Amino acid sequence: MFIRNCWYVIAWDHEVLPEALFSRTVLGEPILLYRTANGSVAALQDRCCHRAAPLSRGRKEGDSVRCGYHGLKFDARGVCTEAPGMDAPPAKACVRSYPCTTRNKWIFVWMGDAERADPALLPDNFSNDHPEWHYQPGYFHYETPQALICDNLLDFSHLSYVHEKTLGGSQAIAQARPEIESIPRGIKVSRRVPNVPPPAYYQRMKTFQGMVDRWFIYDFVLPGTLLMHSGGRPVEDAPDDLSRAIRLHSCQTVTPETATTTHYFFQQSHHGTSANPEVVQIIYNALIAAFNEDRDMITAQARNIAL
Amino acid sequence: MFIRNCWYVIAWDHEVLPEALFSRTVLGEPILLYRTANGSVAALQDRCCHRAAPLSRGRKEGDSVRCGYHGLKFDARGVCTEAPGMDAPPAKACVRSYPCTTRNKWIFVWMGDAERADPALLPDNFSNDHPEWHYQPGYFHYETPQALICDNLLDFSHLSYVHEKTLGGSQAIAQARPEIESIPRGIKVSRRVPNVPPPAYYQRMKTFQGMVDRWFIYDFVLPGTLLMHSGGRPVEDAPDDLSRAIRLHSCQTVTPETATTTHYFFQQSHHGTSANPEVVQIIYNALIAAFNEDRDMITAQARNIAL
Amino acid sequence: MFIRNCWYVIAWDHEVLPEALFSRTVLGEPILLYRTANGSVAALQDRCCHRAAPLSRGRKEGDSVRCGYHGLKFDARGVCTEAPGMDAPPAKACVRSYPCTTRNKWIFVWMGDAERADPALLPDNFSNDHPEWHYQPGYFHYETPQALICDNLLDFSHLSYVHEKTLGGSQAIAQARPEIESIPRGIKVSRRVPNVPPPAYYQRMKTFQGMVDRWFIYDFVLPGTLLMHSGGRPVEDAPDDLSRAIRLHSCQTVTPETATTTHYFFQQSHHGTSANPEVVQIIYNALIAAFNEDRDMITAQARNIAL
Repeated sequence: MFIRNCWYVIAWDHEVLPEALFSRTVLGEPILLYRTANGSVAALQDRCCHRAAPLSRGRKEGDSVRCGYHGLKFDARGVCTEAPGMDAPPAKACVRSYPCTTRNKWIFVWMGDAERADPALLPDNFSNDHPEWHYQPGYFHYETPQALICDNLLDFSHLSYVHEKTLGGSQAIAQARPEIESIPRGIKVSRRVPNVPPPAYYQRMKTFQGMVDRWFIYDFVLPGTLLMHSGGRPVEDAPDDLSRAIRLHSCQTVTPETATTTHYFFQQSHHGTSANPEVVQIIYNALIAAFNEDRDMITAQARNIAL
Repeated sequence: MFIRNCWYVIAWDHEVLPEALFSRTVLGEPILLYRTANGSVAALQDRCCHRAAPLSRGRKEGDSVRCGYHGLKFDARGVCTEAPGMDAPPAKACVRSYPCTTRNKWIFVWMGDAERADPALLPDNFSNDHPEWHYQPGYFHYETPQALICDNLLDFSHLSYVHEKTLGGSQAIAQARPEIESIPRGIKVSRRVPNVPPPAYYQRMKTFQGMVDRWFIYDFVLPGTLLMHSGGRPVEDAPDDLSRAIRLHSCQTVTPETATTTHYFFQQSHHGTSANPEVVQIIYNALIAAFNEDRDMITAQARNIAL
Repeated sequence: MFIRNCWYVIAWDHEVLPEALFSRTVLGEPILLYRTANGSVAALQDRCCHRAAPLSRGRKEGDSVRCGYHGLKFDARGVCTEAPGMDAPPAKACVRSYPCTTRNKWIFVWMGDAERADPALLPDNFSNDHPEWHYQPGYFHYETPQALICDNLLDFSHLSYVHEKTLGGSQAIAQARPEIESIPRGIKVSRRVPNVPPPAYYQRMKTFQGMVDRWFIYDFVLPGTLLMHSGGRPVEDAPDDLSRAIRLHSCQTVTPETATTTHYFFQQSHHGTSANPEVVQIIYNALIAAFNEDRDMITAQARNIAL
């Protein structure tokens, strides 16, 4: 029971190396990714149509892949072009190919009807590849259904409790009521939290003497992508003065691996004309710590639901 | 398919510390235990009514517990008294609370209709807390259904074979026919075994020159508690002379964790005006060795049944 | 859904020691093997008819076995001859016994109707016990259904790809078309591959200067046994000249443990008036390496099918 006619992130761009075969399961379907000579990514069902062996255990031959079990060869469209021991392969021998595109460092596959694959439906993950936004990419594997992670991302009141010592730092985040608007394929959530202590990781980035005003403004769009501007600035600064503010942009997305397991791709960028490696590391470390807190809680929740 | 209207042991008294949240699953239901200011134990469903997170991952606030996911607060009756971001929590927000009582070091929960919870139905586990009986408490986790352990406790002929080198020591135990009487909610089993060698652990406690008469007299009461007087004395002593006898009392109980896993709480006491730490240790060591023999056999039996 | 009226290999002869109880599950049924005084092997259901405990956790008493749980004793036909605490065991108390025979180092059990057990249906595994054939016996456990391994053994085109660097060495093996004939309870497969480089393990046995003609001639008979003559000789030698050839005979058989797991017994012998221990080791090492390649591929295939 998955949403099929949409783009799912299957990999970070850097995960698919030029000469390697890369396999990842999406919506319960094993998918092979590899790069063709022009650098684009082919996405084929990772299951030979002959005896169901994973093609990713075979080898790349030019823009084709050869099955490592009995040697059938498939081109980048999934058409079988060679079957050892036969003069020509059966006309219908092929594996499914998936529309696949790369946008801003995320590789997307379209899991539904190929003719409906529309690049206009890709999320605006600009900060993944922007000269003024800097980050280290993250990936987590979850042993829980995707919906529980979406549920987590849709209610930031959990920052006060799950992330009390990492991203949160004040019960006021949970007390603040967000504004929620409808947008195409999702919602926009705006949570503004005035006059709170800066969280621990802010303090590592800058020196704050007093309280800050914080904001979390994000789109959450199907099938499971969060695109967020967030930050904080000293309460005494004028609303339009961001000179002493921390400004962040985050792209996070959850892709079902199976009905019960999930891929989580994420980054949180800081803004600047050039990357500050120390700040990149501080933010990444804070995310990893916090997202482990989320995973622990969501895994415990899933176990409770399954009992 | 559990018996519900009865008391189940959920923990040893010492397992629930004053400031901690303790969680254990009984009959497939996760249950949170914690102590209120007056020292009594609150037992709540360990599953927040909001998003099913375990309350045991939250924190204790006075006599209440706050969920660690989105911050809902529940009192010791399970009533939600605070929901962050709301002026007042929804009127019906609550988690189930369980009748809970402590008797002689065992904490019991009543898993059925609360109004039927009757302290008169608690088993007579007196030796768990008696100045003349001394023991070290034991706990095992079983990866088998509860019924197979009850089955084990109901037929002590297994002492001759499973416990040949630990608690048994003679095939005569299996040969002896027990008397069995009906008692409220259970049976009384009396097995007397005359003129046998003392088992290995008797020999570690006292010096026996010759044969002993042994006895095992126990009540087995639903849902799964064994209360046993046992012992042995030199065959040459008069029947009413216990001066050279070994006298033991044992309380053992099995509580289903789920349909396929079980909690086993046990002790075996020796009688004396004061504890003999060496004897406590000898008996405990013999029990641990023997109960591992039982668990190995019952686990193998369960595996066979499941094949 | 197993084929039942046939012989399955349950063990290598050397696995069942004179005084020990040996247990292995076949077609989901746990089976106890032990040797009686005359050296023959008794095969009993490894599940006491009393409380389902494995008899293999009990002890051998002469030609009988005594259950280690409550002490019931069974003779080699599976008849209960003693039940502790009873004057005589119940008349019907027994465990199933299986027709069992040893032929050329393989111990076979008949899993169907005992009266249909026919030694004439045993496969001709002669090289397991022949003065001119020499080998080291092998055993693998598979976490896959038996049928996938039969599937593997029925199509040697996989040698070119799965075993490219071990048993194969040329794509010509896959290109060669085998002749297939029907035989009783199976098929005969003849694959001849002229003029190919000798595979790596041939080179370790002898010095080949040039190309070889290779052959793989095997019977595959139900429920899952491969009996194969194979080898290679320099292309320049006359067809009837085997003086410089490598001649091998292999017996391999797969027995379902359960519906999803399998036992694999195998050997590959070389021919000679006496064993050459070095050659035995070279062949065994090559088999282990290659059969691990098979198991990796088949396990990945099974995982794909199960997704």
